Amino acid sequence: MYRNHTCGEIRMENNGQEVLLAGWVQRVRNLGGMTFIDLRDRYGLTQLVVDDQSTNEVKNVASGLGREYVVQARGVVRERSSKNLKIATGEVELHISELNVLNSAATPPFTIQDDTDGGDELRMKYRYLDLRREAVRKNLELRAKMAHVVRNYLGSKDFIETETPVLIKSTPEGARDFVVPSRMNPNQFYALPQSPQLFKQLLMVAGFDRYYQIVKCFRDEDLRADRQPEFTQIDCEMSYVHQEDVLNMFEGLTKHIFKELKGIDIIDFPRMTFADAFEKYGNDKPDLRFGMMIHEMTDLVKGKEFKLFDEAEYIGGICATGCGEYTRKQLDALTEYIKKSQIGGSGLIYAKVNSDGTVKSSVDKFYSSEDVQKWAARLEAKPGDLLLVTFGTKERALPVISALRLEMGRQCGLMDKEIFKPLWVVDFPLLEWSEETQRFFAMHHPFTSPKPEDIALLDSDPGKVRANAYDLVINGVEIGGGSVRIFDSALQAKMFKILGFTKEAAEDQFGFLMNAFKFGAPPHAGIAFGFDRLVSMFAGLDSIRDVIAFPKNNSGRDVMNDSPSPIAQTQLDELYLKMVKTE
Amino acid sequence: MYRNHTCGEIRMENNGQEVLLAGWVQRVRNLGGMTFIDLRDRYGLTQLVVDDQSTNEVKNVASGLGREYVVQARGVVRERSSKNLKIATGEVELHISELNVLNSAATPPFTIQDDTDGGDELRMKYRYLDLRREAVRKNLELRAKMAHVVRNYLGSKDFIETETPVLIKSTPEGARDFVVPSRMNPNQFYALPQSPQLFKQLLMVAGFDRYYQIVKCFRDEDLRADRQPEFTQIDCEMSYVHQEDVLNMFEGLTKHIFKELKGIDIIDFPRMTFADAFEKYGNDKPDLRFGMMIHEMTDLVKGKEFKLFDEAEYIGGICATGCGEYTRKQLDALTEYIKKSQIGGSGLIYAKVNSDGTVKSSVDKFYSSEDVQKWAARLEAKPGDLLLVTFGTKERALPVISALRLEMGRQCGLMDKEIFKPLWVVDFPLLEWSEETQRFFAMHHPFTSPKPEDIALLDSDPGKVRANAYDLVINGVEIGGGSVRIFDSALQAKMFKILGFTKEAAEDQFGFLMNAFKFGAPPHAGIAFGFDRLVSMFAGLDSIRDVIAFPKNNSGRDVMNDSPSPIAQTQLDELYLKMVKTE
Repeated sequence: MYRNHTCGEIRMENNGQEVLLAGWVQRVRNLGGMTFIDLRDRYGLTQLVVDDQSTNEVKNVASGLGREYVVQARGVVRERSSKNLKIATGEVELHISELNVLNSAATPPFTIQDDTDGGDELRMKYRYLDLRREAVRKNLELRAKMAHVVRNYLGSKDFIETETPVLIKSTPEGARDFVVPSRMNPNQFYALPQSPQLFKQLLMVAGFDRYYQIVKCFRDEDLRADRQPEFTQIDCEMSYVHQEDVLNMFEGLTKHIFKELKGIDIIDFPRMTFADAFEKYGNDKPDLRFGMMIHEMTDLVKGKEFKLFDEAEYIGGICATGCGEYTRKQLDALTEYIKKSQIGGSGLIYAKVNSDGTVKSSVDKFYSSEDVQKWAARLEAKPGDLLLVTFGTKERALPVISALRLEMGRQCGLMDKEIFKPLWVVDFPLLEWSEETQRFFAMHHPFTSPKPEDIALLDSDPGKVRANAYDLVINGVEIGGGSVRIFDSALQAKMFKILGFTKEAAEDQFGFLMNAFKFGAPPHAGIAFGFDRLVSMFAGLDSIRDVIAFPKNNSGRDVMNDSPSPIAQTQLDELYLKMVKTE
Repeated sequence: MYRNHTCGEIRMENNGQEVLLAGWVQRVRNLGGMTFIDLRDRYGLTQLVVDDQSTNEVKNVASGLGREYVVQARGVVRERSSKNLKIATGEVELHISELNVLNSAATPPFTIQDDTDGGDELRMKYRYLDLRREAVRKNLELRAKMAHVVRNYLGSKDFIETETPVLIKSTPEGARDFVVPSRMNPNQFYALPQSPQLFKQLLMVAGFDRYYQIVKCFRDEDLRADRQPEFTQIDCEMSYVHQEDVLNMFEGLTKHIFKELKGIDIIDFPRMTFADAFEKYGNDKPDLRFGMMIHEMTDLVKGKEFKLFDEAEYIGGICATGCGEYTRKQLDALTEYIKKSQIGGSGLIYAKVNSDGTVKSSVDKFYSSEDVQKWAARLEAKPGDLLLVTFGTKERALPVISALRLEMGRQCGLMDKEIFKPLWVVDFPLLEWSEETQRFFAMHHPFTSPKPEDIALLDSDPGKVRANAYDLVINGVEIGGGSVRIFDSALQAKMFKILGFTKEAAEDQFGFLMNAFKFGAPPHAGIAFGFDRLVSMFAGLDSIRDVIAFPKNNSGRDVMNDSPSPIAQTQLDELYLKMVKTE
């Protein structure tokens, strides 16, 4: 070993000992006759001292050091004269008797500090330097720790970690596959898995009973800010369970992770139907860190000659507690906010409840004080509160008011990153109608079981059928989702038919699954957690990028090693492929 | 839950309790008025009983059951009248009060038993049924357990589990890459990693200090019996270490795995140089479960007019203990064996040491009894032993005699699968000369460090340079391998030059690594274990296929879901690719 201690472990107990350290030069301070060197490794920082009593050789080496040089230092531990109690090693320093440069370093393109001066692009290009920053490395240490905690929990519950293949069969359902041309099977392709869905269901048919895997998945989608072409799931499946068994098991996992990593006891873990979530929060992933629930007001506001409300299918509002003093400018900004194209609101009506209990609305021309008092009562507003109301079709107005609710949550400081409010959203619709293609799509995936009591509706009114599907939502973020699966080959065939598969196409794509179901498939259900997202939530980050060691940018490129990249003609030839020139 | 107990846990303590089980029907035995049903799940087997006292409904359901039906059974635990002490639940049975068929099953194409009647191909096509067999499932349980043990050990040694990308840059060095066309970057390709080599080295540059990952790797090679296009490695890297530190760490891991999974204390863990292994065992992965070491005899046998020996560069032999009674037929078979094309021996000379100490050789015409006694002394033969001698160039004769040694080990029953003899093979040559392309190749990979004392030879005699590279060998199987890495950009550039890279090609392919080395790379070294092979050795299997849940066949096909498969023209169009027709 180049060292016998790390830079994070020397304490007063080591006073007088000779130790050998190795690490990176964080900083060199030359104070007349003395030189202080902060030596850094993953474990911490130790102060090295070179002074009058040091040998000329040590002095010479020390004078040539630069930032990020890799050095090995031998010396005796001694008490510091001026202690730094902010760091664990801050009471001691090492008086150097031997100093070796193991590797020199060019000046890094940005500072290796938590508050670096490097911009995003530069840090991605030199990701190996960015990862030296404690702020970034801590996120990856958290990731490793979470994986460990998850594995231990699932292992203790008899889940068998089982690897499923990465080179699989391409299926047209779902998002776009990445494909891999097969050299040994010319003109044929593997796909990279969007999830191990079919394999984990087959493992249940195989009697594995409980399966899990922390596994890379792939989607060739146009990337948004928080998407990566490869991402990691905690993927699980269980046999002989009902929906509630799955919820309880993974509620247990979630509580365990919070307890182990944050010392937090999660007590409440409510279930909310998709319909309720949409009515009360305007979306399927409610942020329960704050109330400000949506109340429908349609019945309250009609018939007062106010055209916008009279013509609207739905009118609803929220009460922003304590925002009664919002200025005209602030209110205009809120109107602007909901009119942004990605939100698409049509307009914002507001009313203030003054401190004396009187009310003042933006539509006083149409609504009397008594009318507005009724609104305030519906929204449970108190003096000093602000009522925000919007309108439209129900399908469009509720997401608008949901966005407004979240914005008010931000403005009122109600979205504390250290408070965690999980819930299960259940009873999702089984199918979604696509106007564009005039057919139903599976809302979760084609293997999701309808609720038994809704099966009769499959023929008469498929859009009304609810699924035994569930999402785990924490603080307004979808952390996981899953479903009870169909385990009957006839019902599965029916689902494929409703989804517009011909018998031949279903057979070609999923024949092996339907065939497997004929040989004694047990009832089973599962879930997948977005591991990147879970870690980033625990790290208090908004993006998953900083919990991935080597992420790709929004064009799917690794800017550090400049990939993807062209390949040799011989490689293409071997794969029986030709490139088509792009315009 | 469909059950409140598993089929493996009911014992006499549960006598009189009502329990609810679910599982597969292993067997139905109808004995007049009584029906016995063996119900199976992953955890075990429980006997269900239907008798006179059962309801008609239960009787009816029971009479309709077939093999592999999925059923739920409620009943009261009672003591069996005829106990089966071979199984853990064999003292009790369940007297059924309620019996529900959860799913029926077509007759499986082979029996779900350890000694199944299904052939290899059929079992692969119905892998989900093959996995129901305890013999197969046990292997995958062992795999999961080993992963757990490995992770705990490495975690306890401060290794950070870090995921590296699967979509990476294609590099021409090494085996053939699988490639993935990028839709967002037309005419460019990702590659799937043959190993995370570059990323783990960059993690060391990043100061991660200790990294590990149990990770899928990919090689597009023509598949031999025991190769898979995707396979799993335990991949590790450490900073600030010398070779011996790595050997000690992973010797520790290996011992830990043996202790945890087999209860075996591995005491000896010798190191052997590549040169010694080749001299004494004829290959670089000696099986130390038995001696029968090779002894060179060149100096002993020359000048006796025996042309085959006189003209040979090298003559060497082994002593097969106790094989002095081998018949002419057996000896001829051995000669045939070494002459097989994949072994390529030129001929076999033998001599027997009789029980009275006299000798008899196949070349008595040329060698006196005294001569042969000298051979026997060299090979440390005793009365009753057989000397087997072969000859040729040293490079070719040693592998022949190695194959012969292993064959004799098999014939003498010296290769006990429950005895484990690990060792480190060290000091591999850095480079291999390719006659075909007239250039040097890296024996391990281009990032392997030469031994410091041999660096001067890089210019004068590169073929003589030894590497700081090491293999972990157990029972003649290479389980892992690794090396100390180059961490100096100038030496790395020199290596690329020796390997025939132009400066431009090296820059294009590995520029980011050499650039990274300029910013303070620490000394580092690593290793990768073949996880599939390690598990299969622990399972006592010869092939890795049965420790992989869904393996591919020798054409890289998954015969269960018939992939790879053609993809839609629209998919090709999006990727700017055209297929070339194969002849």
